[in-house]
Amino acid sequence: MKRVKKLATPPTFLSYAAVGGYEESLGPLGDAFDLCDPSDSFGQRTWESSEGEMGRSAVNIALTKAGLSHTDPELIIAGDLQNQCVASSGGVASFGIPFLGVYGACSTCTEALLLASLMSESEFSSLTVTLTTSHNSAAERQFRTPLEYGGQRTPSAQWTATAAGAFILTTREELLSDKRGLAKITEVMAGRIIDGATADGSNMGAAMAFAAADSIISFFSSSEVSPSSVDYIVTGDLGYVGSDILRDILKEKLPAAAGRHIDCGTLLYDRCARDVHAGASGCGTSASVLAAYFLPNIAAGDIRRILFLSTGALMSPSSVLQGNNILGIAPAVLIEHFEGGNNL
Amino acid sequence: MKRVKKLATPPTFLSYAAVGGYEESLGPLGDAFDLCDPSDSFGQRTWESSEGEMGRSAVNIALTKAGLSHTDPELIIAGDLQNQCVASSGGVASFGIPFLGVYGACSTCTEALLLASLMSESEFSSLTVTLTTSHNSAAERQFRTPLEYGGQRTPSAQWTATAAGAFILTTREELLSDKRGLAKITEVMAGRIIDGATADGSNMGAAMAFAAADSIISFFSSSEVSPSSVDYIVTGDLGYVGSDILRDILKEKLPAAAGRHIDCGTLLYDRCARDVHAGASGCGTSASVLAAYFLPNIAAGDIRRILFLSTGALMSPSSVLQGNNILGIAPAVLIEHFEGGNNL
Repeated sequence: MKRVKKLATPPTFLSYAAVGGYEESLGPLGDAFDLCDPSDSFGQRTWESSEGEMGRSAVNIALTKAGLSHTDPELIIAGDLQNQCVASSGGVASFGIPFLGVYGACSTCTEALLLASLMSESEFSSLTVTLTTSHNSAAERQFRTPLEYGGQRTPSAQWTATAAGAFILTTREELLSDKRGLAKITEVMAGRIIDGATADGSNMGAAMAFAAADSIISFFSSSEVSPSSVDYIVTGDLGYVGSDILRDILKEKLPAAAGRHIDCGTLLYDRCARDVHAGASGCGTSASVLAAYFLPNIAAGDIRRILFLSTGALMSPSSVLQGNNILGIAPAVLIEHFEGGNNL
Repeated sequence: MKRVKKLATPPTFLSYAAVGGYEESLGPLGDAFDLCDPSDSFGQRTWESSEGEMGRSAVNIALTKAGLSHTDPELIIAGDLQNQCVASSGGVASFGIPFLGVYGACSTCTEALLLASLMSESEFSSLTVTLTTSHNSAAERQFRTPLEYGGQRTPSAQWTATAAGAFILTTREELLSDKRGLAKITEVMAGRIIDGATADGSNMGAAMAFAAADSIISFFSSSEVSPSSVDYIVTGDLGYVGSDILRDILKEKLPAAAGRHIDCGTLLYDRCARDVHAGASGCGTSASVLAAYFLPNIAAGDIRRILFLSTGALMSPSSVLQGNNILGIAPAVLIEHFEGGNNL
């Protein structure tokens, strides 16, 4: 069975937007975000609604950049970390765009991009929006304790990003004619669920590292693309702890991949300046870093090709309290630079 | 924009399984279930794990019926109602099948079938498993109160089914040669998020009825198929209250559809014999009724064509407590009888 699908009609990122909160504005990518609200509230009266509004803003910014209205997309694929994914559904309801909800924990951004690619491949939608969000204050009180409780965090714990990434993918040539550089998804692979061999809900990076390793090794054994032909192997939010584990595994099993690894959870914040422990997490991490950093650089041609794998920890507060191991998953998409219409 | 996609390569239901608990065994479809555990526990020590095991059983039964091993499927698409969908991920982790998690509340069964159809259309997977589960005891303590609390339920409240439905879809002709009658998915449509205009978490049927109406009207205005050419328009779990509202809307806006409507939430239990209030709910409802009743009858040719729309209430306990309206969604798939290989 061939795991990797090489797309016959690779969809192009028509536009994208990264929206964040206070911590994100202070990070090294802060200036590259399209919008950061220092209050984290986005004008809403609950953190849960703030996350929905943050996502809605990201979609609106991406639509505006592309010169589209909210009636143009044929489909929106969205997910988040809130119970029953209400940030996504509540956030995008007013657009009236046909909707598919996905849940892949912090792997959601890549899962949605994979599905959007296959939606164009199957000719179901030629103009698809994907949206992924997470919100620190909504996540902390849902997964751990309310912020007011002031719980002490362990060094392996990560800081859930208040961040959203929205992406518009299209196969419609007429929308791309004035683009000078393009980023396209050319290959996709779904992830397997891998037992992270830990039940420690404060060390999700360690739990997810094994799934990332499984997917990276599976991808390069199934694709014609080699590790040495990609500029970066980008994982989602392993953070500092999980990244060290992943690189140890890769050094042993696929050395050519180890040196190309970089993790969005280590890119979003400046850990010397801010108390973010083991780095960023939350499914907005990889989504916002992709939108704020990787895609602009790929479109410009400064980065030519990345393997992008958001990493998810499939657990709930109940499953952790019941002593279940944390399960990891890491779907993958290959994103490449193409010359745009004006350069041809 | 054409909402409905007519599939170029309609996938066939190779096999399917319905698994349930005690209440489900007593219902009119009890004998048609493949397995019912009167303890609802499926040998596990928590209700959350019981739901995972129930789903695993459904997949194993469906695989066995099809003469497949768990290493054969190329993809599994699964979802449930537990926070962070841990019943699905925990339930199917051991299979090692590439996994995509979906969340559509009680619309999950149809969302997964829609995606599985498009996965075969895009040639990403020619043998896909979909799984949908819900568990009464896990859902009650998560969404409302622990069973021991003995909370009084309103007449409009529904009974969350302890039920799982697993489906194996394929486009591989060689797997179908000895089949005498086939059920295929021929058309698919994603749903829009519709505000249910109520914040009453004990009346989800009313909240979802508007989304069902929107999807039924949209489907027949976009497809070449007419309401009079389908045997049934099958909704997921509107129950008695929501079904009455839907039929009132259809009588006014699409009278030809009103008389063909039937709801899985009214088929699973005998409300004269058992205290199930407004009928069954939970995403296992439509999944198990499809597997136990509709698909065998469609394969046999006793039912020729149905429009199948599982209905989802996109809300969480927090969103209800915060006073947000309940949002509804209803993706749709058209399922049709075909003559099998031996009859050609």
